[in-house]
Amino acid sequence: MKQTKFILSEKEMPTSWYNILPDLPKPLPPLLHPGTKEPTILPPPLFPSAIRDQEFSQERYIEIPEEVQEIYRTWRPTALHRAYRLEKALDTPAKIFFKYEGTSQAGSHKPNTAVAQAYYAKQDGIKRMTTETGAGQWGSALAMGCMFFGIELKVYMVKVSYNQKPYRRILMETWGAKCVPSPSPDTEIGRKILAEDPDSPGSLGIAISEAIEDAGPRDDTYYSIGSVINSVLLHQTINGLEAKKAMEKADAYPDIIVGCIGGGSNFAGLYLPFVKDKIEGKKQNLRIINVEPTACPSMTKGPYAWDYGDVAGMAPIVKMYTLGHTFIPPKIHAGGLRYHGMAPIICHLHHLGLVEAKAVPQVATFEAGIQFARTEGIVPAPEPNHAIRVVIDEALACKKSGESKTILLAHSGHGHFDMAAYDEYLSGRLEDYEYPDKLVKEALAQLPVVDYAEA
Amino acid sequence: MKQTKFILSEKEMPTSWYNILPDLPKPLPPLLHPGTKEPTILPPPLFPSAIRDQEFSQERYIEIPEEVQEIYRTWRPTALHRAYRLEKALDTPAKIFFKYEGTSQAGSHKPNTAVAQAYYAKQDGIKRMTTETGAGQWGSALAMGCMFFGIELKVYMVKVSYNQKPYRRILMETWGAKCVPSPSPDTEIGRKILAEDPDSPGSLGIAISEAIEDAGPRDDTYYSIGSVINSVLLHQTINGLEAKKAMEKADAYPDIIVGCIGGGSNFAGLYLPFVKDKIEGKKQNLRIINVEPTACPSMTKGPYAWDYGDVAGMAPIVKMYTLGHTFIPPKIHAGGLRYHGMAPIICHLHHLGLVEAKAVPQVATFEAGIQFARTEGIVPAPEPNHAIRVVIDEALACKKSGESKTILLAHSGHGHFDMAAYDEYLSGRLEDYEYPDKLVKEALAQLPVVDYAEA
Repeated sequence: MKQTKFILSEKEMPTSWYNILPDLPKPLPPLLHPGTKEPTILPPPLFPSAIRDQEFSQERYIEIPEEVQEIYRTWRPTALHRAYRLEKALDTPAKIFFKYEGTSQAGSHKPNTAVAQAYYAKQDGIKRMTTETGAGQWGSALAMGCMFFGIELKVYMVKVSYNQKPYRRILMETWGAKCVPSPSPDTEIGRKILAEDPDSPGSLGIAISEAIEDAGPRDDTYYSIGSVINSVLLHQTINGLEAKKAMEKADAYPDIIVGCIGGGSNFAGLYLPFVKDKIEGKKQNLRIINVEPTACPSMTKGPYAWDYGDVAGMAPIVKMYTLGHTFIPPKIHAGGLRYHGMAPIICHLHHLGLVEAKAVPQVATFEAGIQFARTEGIVPAPEPNHAIRVVIDEALACKKSGESKTILLAHSGHGHFDMAAYDEYLSGRLEDYEYPDKLVKEALAQLPVVDYAEA
Repeated sequence: MKQTKFILSEKEMPTSWYNILPDLPKPLPPLLHPGTKEPTILPPPLFPSAIRDQEFSQERYIEIPEEVQEIYRTWRPTALHRAYRLEKALDTPAKIFFKYEGTSQAGSHKPNTAVAQAYYAKQDGIKRMTTETGAGQWGSALAMGCMFFGIELKVYMVKVSYNQKPYRRILMETWGAKCVPSPSPDTEIGRKILAEDPDSPGSLGIAISEAIEDAGPRDDTYYSIGSVINSVLLHQTINGLEAKKAMEKADAYPDIIVGCIGGGSNFAGLYLPFVKDKIEGKKQNLRIINVEPTACPSMTKGPYAWDYGDVAGMAPIVKMYTLGHTFIPPKIHAGGLRYHGMAPIICHLHHLGLVEAKAVPQVATFEAGIQFARTEGIVPAPEPNHAIRVVIDEALACKKSGESKTILLAHSGHGHFDMAAYDEYLSGRLEDYEYPDKLVKEALAQLPVVDYAEA
């Protein structure tokens, strides 16, 4: 009998997250305050104290609170699958594994941090949280996280998505969150934008500003972000730690790890525990491929520069590969991959030569997603389709070279809320986008001037 | 540490299905031919030979073919969960377990039989299958099953659902099936109906007739049905056999088993292995509650009578609790529970006093589903919400009586394709339906006259 899935028991589920900061060969550049441009921390009125501590902690392993573990266990550990049927269809000697996060109640990896953030907010006596969401993936995960701890949640959802994609909004409401279209009349910035343009379609930048404005002055309210920052990547390492143990059960170790990156938390969560082996010199040939859309190619086309984390320039300045904080990427279906920058940890690792990056065009990612659905059965979300494209390409390269490499895919979730995108692909209406060279150039001209000297 | 989930290893996954027929205290009444009204078998040109054999087999355990087991292992075994958070919210001494089938690639239990049926068709050298679907749950599961074995599939989908619910149609297409709105111009009966009424919204009865007409005369094509018949219930017992082993791991045995019934395959699949214990006298106090909608109360309001399995009167006549084959139930959101009759095995067990039935109104089921989503995180499909209503009621009864009963719920799948129904509930637009007494009376007047004398 060929074993198809490798699953840890609940007792084997990791009880600590892995923090890569103390293991980095060179220290991570700091956050800079958007006003003073001096090193800073996550702003105290917006974030739980524990999260602020975690953000720059030098502890290698940070214990997962028992209450968070209890909730993790409602869906974790998640399975490591061997993709025998995809391998056969590709006629490749490569061994393809995928760690699948789509069995969480929200259908993706996002609850790993949502649950932790809601828990820490509760610990601080907080009763209410705010956040922004684009297509609704993050908003719904945080709605679930807040539900578990009885925290009220208000989600500012980009208006065009709010109107076009009602299902994720309803999912948030089903878990008890309040979701409003952004720009909304509920904040000063929202009212200002609506006064200028009552039909504004909104943007993630506006939604972030509204969520921060809402949380800022209120003692009972925290703001939450679903990716990019160190602590969010930390929470996602539960997945990589599980994957590493499960690979041991499969008696295998990856030669190549592939995942998609938007803000970076899904893929870094999987690979950081493996990067540790590479840093320690144990696995020097391990390749880690960060896959992004050609429509938003921050890692492959952007400079490694200081830039604001958000469109409005209110968030801290970070060192990252960026297309410029004012760049608005084309409307590809992988809404989770439309961020102008990238998690500083991923950028730092790339700068140090520990990981690589690759960009793939939209249509080819859906072709790959369909091949995955028609072999393994799982219909992936548009985001992991980007990674699947590269997995298939690498497996086909193995066929050519005759090498039997072991490939590990970070499969972040299912596409049950994204069927309209598959319809476009299947009916031949899906299009690729040109790399918006001119727009990026304009956005890069607006990078903040920083004279902070790195150590 | 409280263990939340009880999961078998792949090696522990059952390798045979359980067939209750040889264990029944009295034999199951036969199928009668719709024309001659004499005992008959499943029609050979429509069904695989193995399925026809299974339909009335007297073998207690029927081996699951290795190729089917291999595909089962892409998502099975599924987890048995302990619903600690729901128990706490209800403040009940009851222990609530649920066996969750929503982690299959199609999001429900339906692939358990879809995969088996496609396999057996392939064994007979069949290249093509047809089926009907209402809201699309069954059509998409069979699309997945046929995909695994390279069988072409044509799904006749009730036109009103085809237009209103495009996502399940796209899911079928993603797996490679062809899906057309029924009535279609592709069959004689479809053309006839369209000639009379080009705007016909279609019905499940029409779609069944089209799928059968399409498959009937073609040597390369079989017809497939997703519930009701003995062999489909047999395939679903994989779930009950797993549940029984997993309950052993949890060191528990249910006092009450609860599930929803439409055609009956989901719930019977879970409970038949437990009914065996009851028949053998080992667990005489075990209660098994079949839950149906008050809008379609075949078990609680229908007579135990001979009736056609389909609306058109082309399918065999079976002994079952029925509302009359011409009865069209109100358009509740639980599309899977809108069948006029019920699986003959379930009806027989009820007639023998081995299981009970209960009907619940729609709004109360969504109230229960929301409570489940807001405690366990999983947003259930409208069908299992019916069962969850009764689980909550039984758990609250335990609170009153102080009894610590063990309740096992058959949780058949998630509601990610049913968010519009939750929207109706949350916005106060969801309604209950009166039991359509007059319509049922009219339909019951059209039962076939049968003078077959039972043994």
